[in-house]
Amino acid sequence: MNAEIIAVGSELLLGQIVNTNARFLSEQLAGLGINVFFHTVVGDNPERLEAAIGTAEKRSELIIFTGGLGPTKDDLTKETIAKHISKKLVMDKQALDSIELYFKRTNRVMTENNRKQALVLEGSHVLPNDHGMAPGMMIEASGHIYMLLPGPPKEMEPMFLNYGCQALSGINGSNEQIFSRVLRYFGIGEAALETEILDLIDNQSNPTIAPLAGDGEVTLRITAKHANNAIASSMLDEVEKVINNRVGEYFYGYDQTSLLAELTKYLKDNKLTISAAESLTGGMFQQELTSIPGASSVIKGGVVCYATEIKQQILQVKQATIENHGVVSEQCALELAENVARLFSTDIGISYTGVAGPEELEGKPVGTVFIGIAVKGRPTIVEKLNLGGSREANRVRSIKYGCYYLLRYLKESQNAN
Amino acid sequence: MNAEIIAVGSELLLGQIVNTNARFLSEQLAGLGINVFFHTVVGDNPERLEAAIGTAEKRSELIIFTGGLGPTKDDLTKETIAKHISKKLVMDKQALDSIELYFKRTNRVMTENNRKQALVLEGSHVLPNDHGMAPGMMIEASGHIYMLLPGPPKEMEPMFLNYGCQALSGINGSNEQIFSRVLRYFGIGEAALETEILDLIDNQSNPTIAPLAGDGEVTLRITAKHANNAIASSMLDEVEKVINNRVGEYFYGYDQTSLLAELTKYLKDNKLTISAAESLTGGMFQQELTSIPGASSVIKGGVVCYATEIKQQILQVKQATIENHGVVSEQCALELAENVARLFSTDIGISYTGVAGPEELEGKPVGTVFIGIAVKGRPTIVEKLNLGGSREANRVRSIKYGCYYLLRYLKESQNAN
Repeated sequence: MNAEIIAVGSELLLGQIVNTNARFLSEQLAGLGINVFFHTVVGDNPERLEAAIGTAEKRSELIIFTGGLGPTKDDLTKETIAKHISKKLVMDKQALDSIELYFKRTNRVMTENNRKQALVLEGSHVLPNDHGMAPGMMIEASGHIYMLLPGPPKEMEPMFLNYGCQALSGINGSNEQIFSRVLRYFGIGEAALETEILDLIDNQSNPTIAPLAGDGEVTLRITAKHANNAIASSMLDEVEKVINNRVGEYFYGYDQTSLLAELTKYLKDNKLTISAAESLTGGMFQQELTSIPGASSVIKGGVVCYATEIKQQILQVKQATIENHGVVSEQCALELAENVARLFSTDIGISYTGVAGPEELEGKPVGTVFIGIAVKGRPTIVEKLNLGGSREANRVRSIKYGCYYLLRYLKESQNAN
Repeated sequence: MNAEIIAVGSELLLGQIVNTNARFLSEQLAGLGINVFFHTVVGDNPERLEAAIGTAEKRSELIIFTGGLGPTKDDLTKETIAKHISKKLVMDKQALDSIELYFKRTNRVMTENNRKQALVLEGSHVLPNDHGMAPGMMIEASGHIYMLLPGPPKEMEPMFLNYGCQALSGINGSNEQIFSRVLRYFGIGEAALETEILDLIDNQSNPTIAPLAGDGEVTLRITAKHANNAIASSMLDEVEKVINNRVGEYFYGYDQTSLLAELTKYLKDNKLTISAAESLTGGMFQQELTSIPGASSVIKGGVVCYATEIKQQILQVKQATIENHGVVSEQCALELAENVARLFSTDIGISYTGVAGPEELEGKPVGTVFIGIAVKGRPTIVEKLNLGGSREANRVRSIKYGCYYLLRYLKESQNAN
């Protein structure tokens, strides 16, 4: 099946926002084995939208629309499609109830045009909106499948994951449903991971295995088709086990998680506190950790020790360390991690020192990074990285490595106890 | 003139990257007064690309392509267009020289397929690539204008700004060129700024005035058309003066700058050092300031004082302050700013304390923020914000406000001296 994604919204054509919905849906559809051959963006204009639908119908079987489901006059996606495929719009009781509840809950007055959002294409499969008001819908007509999703990513993404995937699984007329799971890996390259499981990828059928794009990480989407949820789930368990027998040491979590989220969860569950001494990363570790609501039970704070004198005066790195080893050194990372933990009275101290670039430092090349990890009651460890990217990429990757090494060390400690 | 942007690249259709080029170009074209009615994304497939060109020709006069100009077999944008408009590809001597130089400079061996990148459409206007190898080009044929740009944003964006805009200005057959300038404002809303200059916008002709999308800021693009660079420039100076006579107090810089970049520049020029005490922002201010290469001459570091006890123990906020006013208070912000500057021996201390959300704190609503600014030899000031956004938006906007207030205070001090 070939798919096309049509984003509706003049704000996209004015360059006010970027079309992240197309990226998200493309990645999801690739994981489901559906080819996406075109993306189109069209403004809030019924004639041009209808022309774009006509073009899409000539080349694609599945047409997914994002945007234009809101309450204002500008929002005309479903009206235009209704006219184009000669369907009526009817009030969906459940969607209307949910909109009324939404207004009640947020203590706002519901205006008449909000009722418009509960109108759906007659005979369509309605996709509930758990994070907003406008429901999505899917309908088949004259050989095409039309799926309508809201524009805001925070509404669209969970709607597609929770209801859209399932709805697509019914379209072949079978009662099979699609169930998928994302496995996340760190510390191994995409090519290396693929090599390890190449025979599994080559011989896949059901479940399928698809490596996905990963921002410095590697992810695998495993997808099973079956009429029965429990059976599909055990099929996924089985293939996950086979995969992780080979590359399990790099596996760190499922679906939408991140290394920072896993670290935060681990620290919370184990009632551990952390502080950080950041030179290379200039506060990025702490900024990211504190971006998670409720971080205050885990992170007490830390020091950004950008200047050498701050490493000495505030974080008490020894003069001899800096003279003999430099600030980008194993010894300096070790003292920074231990001293920040002591100064901030935390169970864990983590430190980042290195050469972000673009210039080398102390004769050490760009991308040289030392991460110190001090855990109460355990020997302090220092990990060295040799990264090769841009200044920003080196900082971002260092943060991820720090989370990864720290989590690994904490779990080793736990297992040793 | 109506425009369409066609991005060529299977990586977009697989969801591996997001189409930021379409956003950038749309914003630029809007600033130039050119309507963008469609975006299309198509894979590295000559049949589908040619079909997309055919569709675009029916609805758009200007067709801008991004991507597919590289050296590999996958890259076939110019080959497909050449075939479609019956033009030959010819070797461009200047582009070839520049590619050879690029390999020499980076000490790499040039392979044969890199020569392919220097092929251009016969009779086209070649757009030099100052940040990569593949040149861009523009050509008119049978009533349409085709502009071909490389895919990587770091090559495409400067090429469009430095050469593409100019090339577009010639397309009406006149010898007029387009010159534009972006004026950046902070501390005033878009609607308020528009109201102040509404009569200028309504009566604009040459130069034109266009408000642009701004991520918490407001920007105006002023664009003059003239055959003579110097005259166009003075036309821009004049309209800028008229605008800034009304809203100049919110103006902070030109074109691609940012508040952080302006602050860094000011501190460097005036040999001032800064440190930060960050509670609300968890290190974001320092992380952003240190993301600029060479920041070390300006920022010594600071403390992330997320936990209350860190504010007291490390940053010596008085017990009485916290008991009587709480951590989200003017008094706490003041002590944090002064104490971090003293502790880190810097000319300036800045502090951020507030309620990022989602829960209120100390009975103060989400979005309450205090920013302390301590400048050596001047009274410490505290600015209060009442923001209403999400946790992340509140943090990001607080950083910008902090830079804005600090810059304003420093410039006031300078004027007072």
